Amino acid sequence: MTTIKSLSTDSSKKSILPNQYFTLNTDKDVWTLTNEAASLAATNSRNKDREMLNLGQGFFSYSPPDFIIKDVQRVVEIPLVNQYSPTRGRPNLINELIKLYQPFYGNNVKLDKDNVTVHTGANEAIFSCLIGLLNKGDEVIVFEPFFDQYISNIELAGGKIRYVPINPPKELNNRVTTGKEWEIDWDILDQSINENTKAMILNTPHNPIGKVFTREELLRLGDICVKHNILIIADEVYEHLYFTPEFTRIATLSPEIAQLTLSVGSAGKSFAATGWRLGWVISLNKELLNYVAKAHTRICFASPSPFQEAVALALPQATKLNYFKNMQQEYIKKFKILTDAFDKLNLPYTIAEGSYFICANFVNVKIPKDYPFPEELLSKGKDFRISYWLMNELGIVAIPPTEFYIKEHEHAAENLLRFAVCKDDEYLVKAAERFQLLKEYL
Amino acid sequence: MTTIKSLSTDSSKKSILPNQYFTLNTDKDVWTLTNEAASLAATNSRNKDREMLNLGQGFFSYSPPDFIIKDVQRVVEIPLVNQYSPTRGRPNLINELIKLYQPFYGNNVKLDKDNVTVHTGANEAIFSCLIGLLNKGDEVIVFEPFFDQYISNIELAGGKIRYVPINPPKELNNRVTTGKEWEIDWDILDQSINENTKAMILNTPHNPIGKVFTREELLRLGDICVKHNILIIADEVYEHLYFTPEFTRIATLSPEIAQLTLSVGSAGKSFAATGWRLGWVISLNKELLNYVAKAHTRICFASPSPFQEAVALALPQATKLNYFKNMQQEYIKKFKILTDAFDKLNLPYTIAEGSYFICANFVNVKIPKDYPFPEELLSKGKDFRISYWLMNELGIVAIPPTEFYIKEHEHAAENLLRFAVCKDDEYLVKAAERFQLLKEYL
Repeated sequence: MTTIKSLSTDSSKKSILPNQYFTLNTDKDVWTLTNEAASLAATNSRNKDREMLNLGQGFFSYSPPDFIIKDVQRVVEIPLVNQYSPTRGRPNLINELIKLYQPFYGNNVKLDKDNVTVHTGANEAIFSCLIGLLNKGDEVIVFEPFFDQYISNIELAGGKIRYVPINPPKELNNRVTTGKEWEIDWDILDQSINENTKAMILNTPHNPIGKVFTREELLRLGDICVKHNILIIADEVYEHLYFTPEFTRIATLSPEIAQLTLSVGSAGKSFAATGWRLGWVISLNKELLNYVAKAHTRICFASPSPFQEAVALALPQATKLNYFKNMQQEYIKKFKILTDAFDKLNLPYTIAEGSYFICANFVNVKIPKDYPFPEELLSKGKDFRISYWLMNELGIVAIPPTEFYIKEHEHAAENLLRFAVCKDDEYLVKAAERFQLLKEYL
Repeated sequence: MTTIKSLSTDSSKKSILPNQYFTLNTDKDVWTLTNEAASLAATNSRNKDREMLNLGQGFFSYSPPDFIIKDVQRVVEIPLVNQYSPTRGRPNLINELIKLYQPFYGNNVKLDKDNVTVHTGANEAIFSCLIGLLNKGDEVIVFEPFFDQYISNIELAGGKIRYVPINPPKELNNRVTTGKEWEIDWDILDQSINENTKAMILNTPHNPIGKVFTREELLRLGDICVKHNILIIADEVYEHLYFTPEFTRIATLSPEIAQLTLSVGSAGKSFAATGWRLGWVISLNKELLNYVAKAHTRICFASPSPFQEAVALALPQATKLNYFKNMQQEYIKKFKILTDAFDKLNLPYTIAEGSYFICANFVNVKIPKDYPFPEELLSKGKDFRISYWLMNELGIVAIPPTEFYIKEHEHAAENLLRFAVCKDDEYLVKAAERFQLLKEYL
């Protein structure tokens, strides 16, 4: 993992040294490892006559809603909609986003076009926030478990990461738990703040835990950030997928918190169109947002125009059709298909309060000690081996969540696997049935 | 331009300092300046009753071809085409790109999927090359005039730029010249190479000169790069728009040059769809390309899926319909509409050998010395004032090319304006007629 690799076409010449950030981080990421292992697993004797059930990566197995597909088909016929958009986003989309978010900010503020930037997916939105605002040596607080792209995005922007655990419930291995029971380690957070602390990335609803941070937790976090002048990058891409009575947006809690917050949303997550690469940042702090826009201009110049125009058309339709509320109801049903299956097996899990992921606990599943695991999994968390075993024995693909921890803290999640439920119900029912094969191993 | 700006919501607190790269570079870019000035110019007494003719930014005024629009409409109906693509690109697109580029590389090499990465536009492709391969302090050779995004892309990746002029023909002010007469300053190139030289960005066909580098020039450049082990980022986004007998791709000149070259292409330029944000990198050096892919994964994760699938369908159709050759013929006609107008006025220009830009010379146009130029243009090259005058007096918008030079070298282009011809013929005819108003000022 730590040898510097350099590329040379001729050994007599000075070699070409790629960006050392990448030469020093050569481990395969969890997506690659899982996909490669799943491809192989599909051919083994157990799986070769049955369908592999992939609940790994969070892509939708179904289409975006009809109305937005029709919008795309319509707008690509307009010549200028196929050309460059303004780098900050198309006016139509910006206007609709203002209408969508204005109600959350109340009557005392009035969002305008300078409170919005449009990006090439939420990942590029977060990367633009970091490139726009970090200087070398700035520190960024990241909660564990984290979405893995945060790490490289911060480090490529010259930032240093301070990891703060979200501690699991004590009885994680014994019973069904709730997102509320996963709690920020406030002491470690306190110890992690110093004069170099520049920003914090907060993800709610949370991937992979499914936790929706409460108003009280967010106020506590927000007040800490106000006290120490820490930027808040609020990754709220699952904003429409919460199953708690309310979803609190940290930027709406006080004017002071709002001035420090960049809130990130995603068309891909909201409209089941992860392949469209369209996201946005909303902030009451126009000056901060201006630097995010400058970074975006240099990174991607502008974002895909037809999808911007289609989403602009779709947002009012979504409101009229109650699309987001209906989606919540559908997801409650989807989660229930899996949790009923886990309940039958007495498999503990954390109830998803939001997002489209659920973490189930495999501590009681008896996996043979001498199972032929590949070499590259031996140095990984135990969950990587559970995942490997599950895909090979049951033909079900899941993501091992210790990937979302640093090595020192990964034991917190070593018995968990993350399952994505953004699949059609029929597929989830098949998975629920397949899970019952676990009975032999309990 | 050099004061460090910091943002504070409360003066008693430590302030938030955005990325100093952006706080130190606060000049408005040429696109913003031009668009803002053009909006104002549209309302003056001369323009208010006529159409502004915008030949500034290089976006197409017409639609992508019907067959590719129909492809988009078709593919968005396929559920998985709306979801994440593999980060390196969709297999269908990669296969079609292999078929498109294989003939240029001859029978001795066989392109495969590892020779291709798909990106979110050519800009993000070049940014990925730089983020993937540069380390802090690496130097990159950039030829002047340059495409302005190169500069920030290199600097954000930690690189340092060495500027090498492409010297204009001696008689630039006196007669119609050719792209061939613009010549790299080989002495300065030689002096610019040192042990930190990591890469060179080469743009052919060239924006804004319209120069298509000859085989001899490219061989000379390639051999220099091989001798000093310098990466070549070959920005070939106008690859289908050349009007010379041949267009030479530097990567095809020798196996040694090929091993150092990353060739960048663009669906936006090739299919008149600049708003789709789809580009690619082709390289025979799979190891180098692997680092480009790693950077891309972190920057954008993946690129827009429906456009990838549509371009995959469109490429064989384009070949069958002779689309690229027909486009060349159409552009020869478009250029002629403008050059006929310039000829009537005896306005010198450089014949475009490629790209969709043409630079005309306004040295003989008499612009009143006391014209009321805005303050912010006084420190800029003379061409910024010519451009301002032209949009205000004739209602024609152009780009001042000294933006594509460093201050010390900008005099080379101070009498030129860049006009984009990627507009429908009718629009160009209107511009050609409008140009005749210049007679009063000659």
